[in-house]
Amino acid sequence: MFNIFLPTKIIFGQGSVEHLPDSIKNLGNKAMIVTGKKSTKQSGLLDRIVSLLKKTDVESVIYDKIQPNPVSNDVDEAAEIAKKENVKFVIGLGGGSAIDSAKAIALTAAMGGKFWDYVEVGGGKKPDKALPVIAIPTTHGTGTEADPFAVITNPETNEKVGIGYSVIFPKISIVDPEIMITLPKNQTAYTSLDAFYHSLEAFLNIDANPYSDILAIDSMKRIVANLPIAYRNGADIYARTNLAWASTEAGITETLTGVIANHAIEHGLSGFHPELPHGLGLCITGPYLLEYIFDEIRERLAILAHEVFNIDEYNTTTAARIFIDMLFEFQELFSLNQKLSSLGFKEKELENIAKVAYRAMKGVVVKTPKKLQENDLLQIIKKAF
Amino acid sequence: MFNIFLPTKIIFGQGSVEHLPDSIKNLGNKAMIVTGKKSTKQSGLLDRIVSLLKKTDVESVIYDKIQPNPVSNDVDEAAEIAKKENVKFVIGLGGGSAIDSAKAIALTAAMGGKFWDYVEVGGGKKPDKALPVIAIPTTHGTGTEADPFAVITNPETNEKVGIGYSVIFPKISIVDPEIMITLPKNQTAYTSLDAFYHSLEAFLNIDANPYSDILAIDSMKRIVANLPIAYRNGADIYARTNLAWASTEAGITETLTGVIANHAIEHGLSGFHPELPHGLGLCITGPYLLEYIFDEIRERLAILAHEVFNIDEYNTTTAARIFIDMLFEFQELFSLNQKLSSLGFKEKELENIAKVAYRAMKGVVVKTPKKLQENDLLQIIKKAF
Ligand SMILES: [Fe+2]
Ligand SMILES: [Fe+2]
Repeated sequence: MFNIFLPTKIIFGQGSVEHLPDSIKNLGNKAMIVTGKKSTKQSGLLDRIVSLLKKTDVESVIYDKIQPNPVSNDVDEAAEIAKKENVKFVIGLGGGSAIDSAKAIALTAAMGGKFWDYVEVGGGKKPDKALPVIAIPTTHGTGTEADPFAVITNPETNEKVGIGYSVIFPKISIVDPEIMITLPKNQTAYTSLDAFYHSLEAFLNIDANPYSDILAIDSMKRIVANLPIAYRNGADIYARTNLAWASTEAGITETLTGVIANHAIEHGLSGFHPELPHGLGLCITGPYLLEYIFDEIRERLAILAHEVFNIDEYNTTTAARIFIDMLFEFQELFSLNQKLSSLGFKEKELENIAKVAYRAMKGVVVKTPKKLQENDLLQIIKKAF
Repeated sequence: MFNIFLPTKIIFGQGSVEHLPDSIKNLGNKAMIVTGKKSTKQSGLLDRIVSLLKKTDVESVIYDKIQPNPVSNDVDEAAEIAKKENVKFVIGLGGGSAIDSAKAIALTAAMGGKFWDYVEVGGGKKPDKALPVIAIPTTHGTGTEADPFAVITNPETNEKVGIGYSVIFPKISIVDPEIMITLPKNQTAYTSLDAFYHSLEAFLNIDANPYSDILAIDSMKRIVANLPIAYRNGADIYARTNLAWASTEAGITETLTGVIANHAIEHGLSGFHPELPHGLGLCITGPYLLEYIFDEIRERLAILAHEVFNIDEYNTTTAARIFIDMLFEFQELFSLNQKLSSLGFKEKELENIAKVAYRAMKGVVVKTPKKLQENDLLQIIKKAF
């Protein structure tokens, strides 16, 4: 048995940003735009969104302090501003950090209190409302435009948690590949691999179902075929469109089924080292997780070897091993097979990382098709060290 | 560019009906159950639903006069009862006729007036609310559990129209293959082919997009593989589960993209001959529509020849012709290649059927990848005569 629930209206395609004014009718006359410090200003996108809002007489309040791996303090500060300014809806403009922050701000502004009150390992309160959220992603990875999740770090405890509440499903998401063509080379790879791991982990999840399976396979195929092209030539709009759609598909798989232990581990890693890009972190430990749970996922990996990498090998074990090899090879195209030791991680902090990852993200660890404890996560992290 | 919007929560799988009490919490203490005259009583399902509602202290008002090809008079009568009894939500229990009627009743009860006021070729009013609708399909064909449409006939004019308003998306749909195993042989074939044509027509629709494409192909493959088995042995739960999921997938394609002229023609046929099963009507004219617009759909049919029937023929025209041949062959397995002349249709009424079909369903005719007029529909109907 499985459930399908995705109330977000998604407008997908080249030029779709121009539909913003039509989409937000009746949401109110004041919006907070949540974005990062630089890129949406440099590209002119922020100005463009402000003018699109003006077209339909919506005033903008800009909160532009969001950093990669966004922190709860910023969410709380922005929520205070949103309340004071009486904004009616919140637009997340940027990568996952901007959109996830927008979701967290929308929740905190509507519910009151601090964001961490609504986190399970924090205050543990359940929110029942949020301001409407509009998601306009400028990267093709997080899938947050099609899911009810927000990933926020508490800088005091290094806990990087994902909350999931249906009140923070975006009301409208506008996914426009044209605004993604300026995404730099490395970000192009990181975010695409984030989407790839959403689909891969959803496909391996114990709750996998036929709906998320076909979306997962389709999105992985699109990434394998198109990322090498977009990585070389970021302006290739066909490749960008494929990667954008793959990311949204992968976001739907997250909503339908969800990720497993690799995302838990990565939250541990970047919770302690916020400079580690999420997509890179996933690549560093991902293949080792697959090896660690190999016996449990052999048949599923064999299917992916065939479907995603077109491997015609009919011995299940061999095909599954080939999938892991090919994944390493694919990641190598974009220099993503790095080691934690060369990225500033210290051996003595690994145990604590595993512990915090397990505690903060147990909900997804238990969806892995092998029972994993804190120590299992540590073993996987050590392989990647 | 394309839009995704499906706010319905769908609970899919064997035994999912037992989740009814959990799903309807907070919807209120009185429900109208809309169902047909016989089958849900004979199977005991109606009683089971009434007890499931009682479990969570919801009182049932039963409206059980729905007939195949439901009519607007019944909708109006039931809406009056719903208002008088102050029911809080409406459960459609049965095939498409019961669920579509539930949607129409939910709309009419909330908005007031007559159902035909809200039909484009009728009063033309736009509804902005409806009582919450719960869909519990007992057939695997209409896809109404995953779409905002309701097909109702006006018995005075023989207009059989589909309305589509987001307020009548079911709030919750429970798709349980176990309650479908008693579906008789012919209904099994008719409803499965209805789903097949939803996917086929959506795949050929000028608005086809990658999301509905993969769902369309997946559902057609499931039907081709599983209908012969369920047709011989209706109790095969694996085949039923596949057909149930194929139907929901096809419903999603209808929502994402929609049907084309074959559904318009069929509404013409069964609007005048309500005894004609919808799925059979689609099979009678479907292949002739494909032949009529062959030049415009050649490439798309060639893809389906390969994907759906596994035909390894790389000449596009040949592959497309093979698809049409295979469709006839497939339909023949279930005796669905019938002629209108042997089903009580008279040659002199065909012109009027084409005229009414075109007027009532122009919205889907224009989505066909060839510009079709009333006379084109007539030519296709004549081939099937
Ligand atoms: Fe992720
Ligand atoms: Fe249909």
